Amino acid sequence: MDSKDINKYIEDLAVKAKSAASLISSIETKKKDSALNTMAEIISERKEQILQANYQDIEEAKDQNISPHLLERLELNESRIDSMVLGLKNIAKLPDPIGNITKLKSTPSGIRVRKMRVPIGVIGIIYESRPNVTADAAALCFKSGNSCILRGGSESLRSNIEISQCLIDALEENKLPKSSVNLIKTSDREAVRMLLSQEESLDLIIPRGGKNLIKSVLENTKIPVLRHLDGICHVFIDKDAEVQKALDISINAKTYRYSICGAMETLLIHKNIAKEVLPKLGKLFFEKEVELRGCKQTIKLIDASEATEQDWVSEYLAPILCIRIVESLDAAIKHINKYGSAHTDSIVTENNERAQIFLKSVDSSSVMHNLPTCWADGFEYGLGAEIGISTDKLHARGPIGLEGLTSEKYLVLGNAELRGI
Amino acid sequence: MDSKDINKYIEDLAVKAKSAASLISSIETKKKDSALNTMAEIISERKEQILQANYQDIEEAKDQNISPHLLERLELNESRIDSMVLGLKNIAKLPDPIGNITKLKSTPSGIRVRKMRVPIGVIGIIYESRPNVTADAAALCFKSGNSCILRGGSESLRSNIEISQCLIDALEENKLPKSSVNLIKTSDREAVRMLLSQEESLDLIIPRGGKNLIKSVLENTKIPVLRHLDGICHVFIDKDAEVQKALDISINAKTYRYSICGAMETLLIHKNIAKEVLPKLGKLFFEKEVELRGCKQTIKLIDASEATEQDWVSEYLAPILCIRIVESLDAAIKHINKYGSAHTDSIVTENNERAQIFLKSVDSSSVMHNLPTCWADGFEYGLGAEIGISTDKLHARGPIGLEGLTSEKYLVLGNAELRGI
Repeated sequence: MDSKDINKYIEDLAVKAKSAASLISSIETKKKDSALNTMAEIISERKEQILQANYQDIEEAKDQNISPHLLERLELNESRIDSMVLGLKNIAKLPDPIGNITKLKSTPSGIRVRKMRVPIGVIGIIYESRPNVTADAAALCFKSGNSCILRGGSESLRSNIEISQCLIDALEENKLPKSSVNLIKTSDREAVRMLLSQEESLDLIIPRGGKNLIKSVLENTKIPVLRHLDGICHVFIDKDAEVQKALDISINAKTYRYSICGAMETLLIHKNIAKEVLPKLGKLFFEKEVELRGCKQTIKLIDASEATEQDWVSEYLAPILCIRIVESLDAAIKHINKYGSAHTDSIVTENNERAQIFLKSVDSSSVMHNLPTCWADGFEYGLGAEIGISTDKLHARGPIGLEGLTSEKYLVLGNAELRGI
Repeated sequence: MDSKDINKYIEDLAVKAKSAASLISSIETKKKDSALNTMAEIISERKEQILQANYQDIEEAKDQNISPHLLERLELNESRIDSMVLGLKNIAKLPDPIGNITKLKSTPSGIRVRKMRVPIGVIGIIYESRPNVTADAAALCFKSGNSCILRGGSESLRSNIEISQCLIDALEENKLPKSSVNLIKTSDREAVRMLLSQEESLDLIIPRGGKNLIKSVLENTKIPVLRHLDGICHVFIDKDAEVQKALDISINAKTYRYSICGAMETLLIHKNIAKEVLPKLGKLFFEKEVELRGCKQTIKLIDASEATEQDWVSEYLAPILCIRIVESLDAAIKHINKYGSAHTDSIVTENNERAQIFLKSVDSSSVMHNLPTCWADGFEYGLGAEIGISTDKLHARGPIGLEGLTSEKYLVLGNAELRGI
């Protein structure tokens, strides 16, 4: 497609998505759930085709030497497709937030004020690598009454086309507007620029990816954006930590899965406990083949290279960990608020008072006590599923489930009460 | 100030506001309320000075021929200052949302997930004319633990300086950081551009004003924006309306106060009832000296000039009303969703089924039944006070009170539960 064709293609998608959004904004829950179950069935039936498309994506990605963690995210296999199918079925089982009405407190005049939960409208989602996001994101948008326009990474285009076709076929089989789910089928960058300029049709952009993606989205759109920035997550081992818990939590936070945004990237440790804990931790991480980079004090205690200023602001998503010995709880909090990404940070301590200070003062979307940061996940938080983890403070912060994809409007009911009379 | 000085001035304000924000984010409610009461006292004491500054602003505005509704917004008098004082005292009495903890449902693993209400941080507010916004907005931000940078209209600069000094003196008297409240003391436009580029320090921009202001803010910032667009509010008189209610509601919606954003700008009326209602309405509006502009059908029934396409998208804030006769409930909904500003729209009908369709389908921040649109107001909705009315769908929609100026973070508590093990 040349630039003119792309413009027309995207504008057309956006207009159709908007008209689909108003059609699905208030349809019955039963109809939505039936379509979601059909989506699951069709993906299950077409497992082979999806794997084949994914195989082609992977081969091409290997030729282009993409990084191991991107390759890990890109890869589908039987079990990942099974969890995609299970995910769709689970979303069908989740309670539907749309139409819920909350009463507000009394009003000075007696007019009756309520809030009603409604969809946002048309949501544009820009993401990288993981093809399962195609199914998850579309299903969450659809269940919450929104239509979506998906733009996946160019490296997963074949997989995404295959998966999204399953979803669209399921909509048609259920006689629902197929423009409720849209995938941009070109990897031309012009398509993103064009998508970001559709402020007449789109109500929200959710970019999932690195700092550069977010920055470029913010510079090129007037549409509201829900940021999903990187996860530079910290575990702080306090002086009052129980040593075994500190070891277990640190290892799990780093090695549960290197490529997730909740993986710990920096370990902070109180100077009073460092001598006891660090050598043990060093040994455990050595066994797991995790590369260690430390501050000047750290490298006196364990075998690690010296960390640079750049290391404290790096999201590795790889078996690399930075370690810093800090003077105090306050120094740990300051380090996190300065170098962190306001994603997820945890304190390990048996001292509840110190835990409370940490939980209050660390300005991140999730603050944890005696837990590894890798728990940061909508499903684990009881949301049923998540579309991503917002590091924004506005609208929805942290893991975003169905409710995060909705808005509330005021219903105001009266009997011709007049104002000022 | 030259451009370099302005840049330094704004950057300095932003950095200080950020450090104040972290200091006031978790101070006791009692301390905040005491400062708010001192603010009220000082404004009360300095009433004369404020009125004098306002008089100078008004004289200059008259010289510059600003529009009557801007002049009406700009003007302070004893009673408006008294309500500013009362407003501050009321905000001191409101419950403090900060620190509230909500439990979530159970989680699959048993880790305990909570949500804690926290301030947003530093809020930039750009507004026009009304000097009372200076006190209201600063007080709401302060009570919700946020620091603020205020940029009022150039026409009200003297009034704003006088009022903000009262607030800052009250902070100092209460030994609280005076950089919690900041007013930009120059009307140079460069100051706004600079403010919009402080994404390292500012967490939110709230522009209150016309389309051009919002557009220019959105084009010049990467900071999240909570839009306060104009209020092109509609009343729809349905075929099943009770005539007397329809008359009362229409007159009140237009004439309660012309300059508020909840004032009705367009009246829609079902064709079946138009012949009975419009002549009566025409007479009432004639008595109130409201200029009428109508569609082709309307001008056959009453004395009105013909409305142009531009009229349906105009916010007059003046004694001008557009009237359109529509074929059906559906046509009314379509008109509102097309020409309206998603602010506040009302249906007058005794038919509950038709009311429900209207309430569900009109995509506005407030939808009303049998009420004039001029009720759209945070205080009247029971929020205690409002910082404005958001026409955004994200974060906070409709009148925004204290809670709309806060965010929630996740607290996740455990006992070294590990993931995937």
